[in-house]
Amino acid sequence: MPKVNRYVDISTVDKEAKKDYIDRHSPFIHCAPAAKSGEKFSVTVRMGQEYAHPDDPDHYIRSIQLFNGETLLAETTFISGSLGGMGAKGNQEVTYSIVPSGSKLRLTAMAFCTKHGLWECDPVEVPVSAAE
Amino acid sequence: MPKVNRYVDISTVDKEAKKDYIDRHSPFIHCAPAAKSGEKFSVTVRMGQEYAHPDDPDHYIRSIQLFNGETLLAETTFISGSLGGMGAKGNQEVTYSIVPSGSKLRLTAMAFCTKHGLWECDPVEVPVSAAE
Amino acid sequence: MPKVNRYVDISTVDKEAKKDYIDRHSPFIHCAPAAKSGEKFSVTVRMGQEYAHPDDPDHYIRSIQLFNGETLLAETTFISGSLGGMGAKGNQEVTYSIVPSGSKLRLTAMAFCTKHGLWECDPVEVPVSAAE
Amino acid sequence: MPKVNRYVDISTVDKEAKKDYIDRHSPFIHCAPAAKSGEKFSVTVRMGQEYAHPDDPDHYIRSIQLFNGETLLAETTFISGSLGGMGAKGNQEVTYSIVPSGSKLRLTAMAFCTKHGLWECDPVEVPVSAAE
Repeated sequence: MPKVNRYVDISTVDKEAKKDYIDRHSPFIHCAPAAKSGEKFSVTVRMGQEYAHPDDPDHYIRSIQLFNGETLLAETTFISGSLGGMGAKGNQEVTYSIVPSGSKLRLTAMAFCTKHGLWECDPVEVPVSAAE
Repeated sequence: MPKVNRYVDISTVDKEAKKDYIDRHSPFIHCAPAAKSGEKFSVTVRMGQEYAHPDDPDHYIRSIQLFNGETLLAETTFISGSLGGMGAKGNQEVTYSIVPSGSKLRLTAMAFCTKHGLWECDPVEVPVSAAE
Repeated sequence: MPKVNRYVDISTVDKEAKKDYIDRHSPFIHCAPAAKSGEKFSVTVRMGQEYAHPDDPDHYIRSIQLFNGETLLAETTFISGSLGGMGAKGNQEVTYSIVPSGSKLRLTAMAFCTKHGLWECDPVEVPVSAAE
Repeated sequence: MPKVNRYVDISTVDKEAKKDYIDRHSPFIHCAPAAKSGEKFSVTVRMGQEYAHPDDPDHYIRSIQLFNGETLLAETTFISGSLGGMGAKGNQEVTYSIVPSGSKLRLTAMAFCTKHGLWECDPVEVPVSAAE
């Protein structure tokens, strides 16, 4: 079965190449710390924080999935070449606009690199307050 | 073959229901009027301008594709329910971050409604200036 | 807007390179001539009849969509390399198993080549007889 | 993070409802026991063996992914309704045609139910003999 890789705090990693490998393959969720029920809530999933990933035809980030708990909200698939063309590196990202309806979001992102497989981030919990 | 529907300026349309139908099914591209080669350029595709679309299990916006000319850059598929749950209407949207490399972008978006098929917007041309 | 290319009978085309180009990019629907309501019905979409398409990282068939009328039934996306690896050519194909419920199917397939864009076949009409 | 559910031999499960739940959500890989390098090899992924799954708008099998080791080969997404319409149950399936190039395939399938999340099967190993 495909291994689901997971981010490790790269400040605890010695080798530069390994820091780079882990960081550039990990999806990171960027969103506000709290949401309101029934109001638009923006969620960005961005690959990497400090390192960039190739976007070449034989090695690129093929997809990003956003889950709320067990529920898939959206999946984006990319074709290589949109980050500057052959040889360019970058941080693939996508922003979704969701409208929360429960009392809590539990967001996770899963990404797939065509060379290095599946990578998942730890869940990000976002409290959702009732509409005013 | 599936018909590819296209936006019509709704100020030229008489019936309210038809304005609503056309507007809520049409993808609109929102981006800056010009881009720089090698720099990140944000492109949002948003469904509808003045009207909102259902997001129910049997009637929702299933996907948004972004093309540059004939080239597909990215495709996002949605599962119904992320816009507030059953009965809620909304304007599904997604934001991509691309890095242009040529002298011009010619962006088009195509969306698919599970009840009303394929909808495409007119191309948006964005000049790309050389990096400084 | 991306052009939707369409198959042309290649026996009417003179140049060998153009025959090859048209044939290998066109999706062809293979199915029985008639279906029964409520019974499984197999539909294969196969790229090309007489010519094969590259499956290299920078040039491959990225997706095949199957429509019934205006309704998308399924979409398959491929990663390059499953047809024998770098340099190999092949005829990407996928088989779906649907269960018709109306009186007629009107099947169309749309494919996307990462270099040569969208290609659609003419609709295939399949009468659906009532369950016995 | 979304849980990845896995098949359990249902003959070891007591409750009928649980047998049904596990079986209908599990992808099963059907293929020949051995493959030849450079020759087409058919791989069917079918949901369930003894039980069928709903295909209703609010509860259906949204996608099937086929992996070889860590490599995604193809992903199919479905729209509900292709298995007979509202109220009908069925076993969603898809057949891919791959051309192996190494000495072994290690196939896994992952499926997503819109209500019950991710389900993965155990890997199926297929020896690949050299071309004659």
